[in-house]
Amino acid sequence: MPRFDSDELIATAHALADAARAATLARFRAAALGVENKAGAGFDPVTLADREAEAAMRAVLAERRPDDAILGEELAGVAGSSGLTWVLDPVDGTRSFMCGTPTWGVLIAVADESGPFFGLIDQPYIGERFLGGLGLAELQARTGRHPLQTRAPRPLAEASLFTTFPEIGSPEEARAFAALAGQVRLTRYGLDCYAYALVALGQIDLVVEAGLQAYDVQAPIAVIEAAGGIVTDWRGGSAHQGGRVLAAANRAVHAEALAILSRAPD
Amino acid sequence: MPRFDSDELIATAHALADAARAATLARFRAAALGVENKAGAGFDPVTLADREAEAAMRAVLAERRPDDAILGEELAGVAGSSGLTWVLDPVDGTRSFMCGTPTWGVLIAVADESGPFFGLIDQPYIGERFLGGLGLAELQARTGRHPLQTRAPRPLAEASLFTTFPEIGSPEEARAFAALAGQVRLTRYGLDCYAYALVALGQIDLVVEAGLQAYDVQAPIAVIEAAGGIVTDWRGGSAHQGGRVLAAANRAVHAEALAILSRAPD
Repeated sequence: MPRFDSDELIATAHALADAARAATLARFRAAALGVENKAGAGFDPVTLADREAEAAMRAVLAERRPDDAILGEELAGVAGSSGLTWVLDPVDGTRSFMCGTPTWGVLIAVADESGPFFGLIDQPYIGERFLGGLGLAELQARTGRHPLQTRAPRPLAEASLFTTFPEIGSPEEARAFAALAGQVRLTRYGLDCYAYALVALGQIDLVVEAGLQAYDVQAPIAVIEAAGGIVTDWRGGSAHQGGRVLAAANRAVHAEALAILSRAPD
Repeated sequence: MPRFDSDELIATAHALADAARAATLARFRAAALGVENKAGAGFDPVTLADREAEAAMRAVLAERRPDDAILGEELAGVAGSSGLTWVLDPVDGTRSFMCGTPTWGVLIAVADESGPFFGLIDQPYIGERFLGGLGLAELQARTGRHPLQTRAPRPLAEASLFTTFPEIGSPEEARAFAALAGQVRLTRYGLDCYAYALVALGQIDLVVEAGLQAYDVQAPIAVIEAAGGIVTDWRGGSAHQGGRVLAAANRAVHAEALAILSRAPD
């Protein structure tokens, strides 16, 4: 395991989030979002905010942590020599951002070879920062600091389930999700990373998504696990690389959801 | 048309929103939400926050506007003699509220016999108040006051469409929505009244819902129309009583959406 100073890593994460907060708020709801179409087909928006925020974070890392590696959504990976990798998503929920919805977030994780051990989910407009790992599990908000603690087990029939798109992913993935949604009390859509923050905050029980990237999920994994929850893929294995993700408030509801989702063919 | 003092009505609306803000924030994300099941079957949650916020608003009206009528979601209607009716939804988006999502809102409208002429959408946790009518069209937020102005026309293929539930309503309503969703660039879910605020703020083009009540829609109508938008039912008629609602940023995108939605059988 690499050697590091926990306080310095946490301070760096805050500095990154502060830099991204300034860059994103300068563009949020501004007339000139500078939306481009990244994909050849379909619609994969990249805004100037994404690129400016990631560049701002990389400038902080170049100054403070030049020996660490970087995996970011928008720019090429940077190799490191420390054994630590910063995993950055400057705007998770670009579509929400484009629509003026305040539930996108900045995702920052620190990982070693065994995965993410510290994560931060920041919502700049609301002014909320969810932190987990290195002894921390808290929400820092305008109203003060609040401990993060996931919900205690309750029957699946009383659980709340979130995902971003009703389509989920492939038809098989959509069917598995529908089977789970049919067993819970409440299914809600559209929150991107904010849904993971709500698991950590003890407000909801489950988030299920598919087709994620490592930078979409490593910060939520660290925050939710620090708050007492569990995040895996749909077979119960590691979700560090993204793909199909099941985030749960506790082992009991995780097991119930996994029993349904694991029926989806690969 | 009833005679009234505009400044006094606006001041009363602010006093109502302040009272509801205190009542709802005392319960939002609190451990004891006091969720009950209002419906005999299905799941229609009412929280203590709904009832306490509506009671707090009614106490303000009893003091300041005893001659006005009241139509509220949670408590019995009150008759009046002034010709004015206050239309109140203490928590629009109760499911969002229960899940800790900060996109529910307090809806306050003032109507005469021709419909709502002033409306307010308040999001207490974020600290945003959207006002429209009586010469106002503005967002009052922590960042200051911002004018509300809906988007200029753009092709339907570039429009953003919001609704709350993918199920929409009846199978016919869901089919009509899907036909519209197939023509726009981006469809998003889950925002309740906050989506109407985003139309007024010029961030999105369309909100389409079905099965609404008068108290769900009268405040959004006043706010959106003051910002330059248009709100009708799916035939182009009045949406004051709720039902099937189409809110649009401008007449051009309204006409394009209406041409699709109006095919839905009654």
